[in-house]
Amino acid sequence: MKLKVYADRMSQPSRAVLIFCKVNGINFEEIEVSLAKRQQLSPEFKEINPMKRVPAIVDGRFKLFESHAILIYLACAFPGVADHWYPNDLFKRAKIQSVLDWHHSNLRSGAAKFVLNTILAPLLGLPMNAQAAAEAEKILSSSLSKIESFWLKGSGRFLVGSNQPSIADLSLVCEIMQLEVLDEKDRTRLLGPHKKVQQWIEDTKNATRPHFDEVHKALFRVKERLQKQRLVGESTSSENSSTTTTTLHSKM
Amino acid sequence: MKLKVYADRMSQPSRAVLIFCKVNGINFEEIEVSLAKRQQLSPEFKEINPMKRVPAIVDGRFKLFESHAILIYLACAFPGVADHWYPNDLFKRAKIQSVLDWHHSNLRSGAAKFVLNTILAPLLGLPMNAQAAAEAEKILSSSLSKIESFWLKGSGRFLVGSNQPSIADLSLVCEIMQLEVLDEKDRTRLLGPHKKVQQWIEDTKNATRPHFDEVHKALFRVKERLQKQRLVGESTSSENSSTTTTTLHSKM
Repeated sequence: MKLKVYADRMSQPSRAVLIFCKVNGINFEEIEVSLAKRQQLSPEFKEINPMKRVPAIVDGRFKLFESHAILIYLACAFPGVADHWYPNDLFKRAKIQSVLDWHHSNLRSGAAKFVLNTILAPLLGLPMNAQAAAEAEKILSSSLSKIESFWLKGSGRFLVGSNQPSIADLSLVCEIMQLEVLDEKDRTRLLGPHKKVQQWIEDTKNATRPHFDEVHKALFRVKERLQKQRLVGESTSSENSSTTTTTLHSKM
Repeated sequence: MKLKVYADRMSQPSRAVLIFCKVNGINFEEIEVSLAKRQQLSPEFKEINPMKRVPAIVDGRFKLFESHAILIYLACAFPGVADHWYPNDLFKRAKIQSVLDWHHSNLRSGAAKFVLNTILAPLLGLPMNAQAAAEAEKILSSSLSKIESFWLKGSGRFLVGSNQPSIADLSLVCEIMQLEVLDEKDRTRLLGPHKKVQQWIEDTKNATRPHFDEVHKALFRVKERLQKQRLVGESTSSENSSTTTTTLHSKM
């Protein structure tokens, strides 16, 4: 039975799992669980993942959720996956595990909360929280600095000094990609100071093309819509603004 | 060269790593990095872990931080560690990895923030944040419910239906143990409804005794001091209260 991947391409860990499968030639079926339509809360999806989150997989009778656990499982279960994605070497593997664990309370926490409290909240009909946005920016900036100065230290182009990407590069870069939907000046302020991070994002994109771009198309469509909305300017009537919100919400 | 474990026994992931080493007969040297004395910020410790967090290990020339990565590394690097701690079986291992990843944004996030915003903040000279405490309690309660209804589902006494503990049991139970420092009525409100969770905590303690109790002694000393402080009651003069705070702070 073919591997099933339950995902929403607007979710960054969903994108990481989808790109990983495509790059490694894993035969799989993508099943969309639309977060905008709240399909993750359906009784059918609760049978797949009782935590009601994407991504999740079903491989035969085996069900699994949490994107890092999925990426590790896929790297070990599918013999065609190249070693560099999750090396057999004990020390290299431990360092990759360290990045993945660090990611949860740092880059992921900062990036997701910042985007939620600047861009997503109004689109989802939630109140804006300026203090939460400021706190999230602090965590996000500090995380990007740590990637620049520590995780990308060394001669390799990828995390922990590797010459080829691992599941950690894919997970972290997909997380950062959500910053594309930000206002350009916010994005420049956050990413501008980190030249190594910028180069590493490009290197990870290049190592996973054309799948990286294809899986990110949905995100770039939202980015374009938001840019158009910004061009209309702050003088937009509340009626127009509400129309755009509805349209965007249906895409998120 | 002997394994070095940099830890503070008041840190829950530090305790998990120390107990794991002791239970598995790993020959190691414990090096205290006192959080109360802010030793994690020292230039010496920054060389061990640039993220300035405990625990961290040095094994020969190999340095590693993040407690889950450390536990996985130790389970794989030391041949005397029994398989149940981190099973070789692909499916069992993937499920344990899923618990460990889930832990970061759920139980860990909720428990640590709740204890910080109810008990620790005044001891550390930080302002109390009632809203943050309420939000943390929501995450903590939901996490305990998920452990009760999902992770402890099945006939096994441990997480994901196992009959013997894994590194996930140790990590999550050590996290929950910090609730010992709470006011008894807060602890009863949080843990009371979860009978399976209570039994699982006991089972994990029993499976790792006497090391579990020994490593938790420092936490229980703080619990006793806080209980005495509460008995003195709210009528305590600010002078006394300030003395107790200083004493406790030096133990945290």
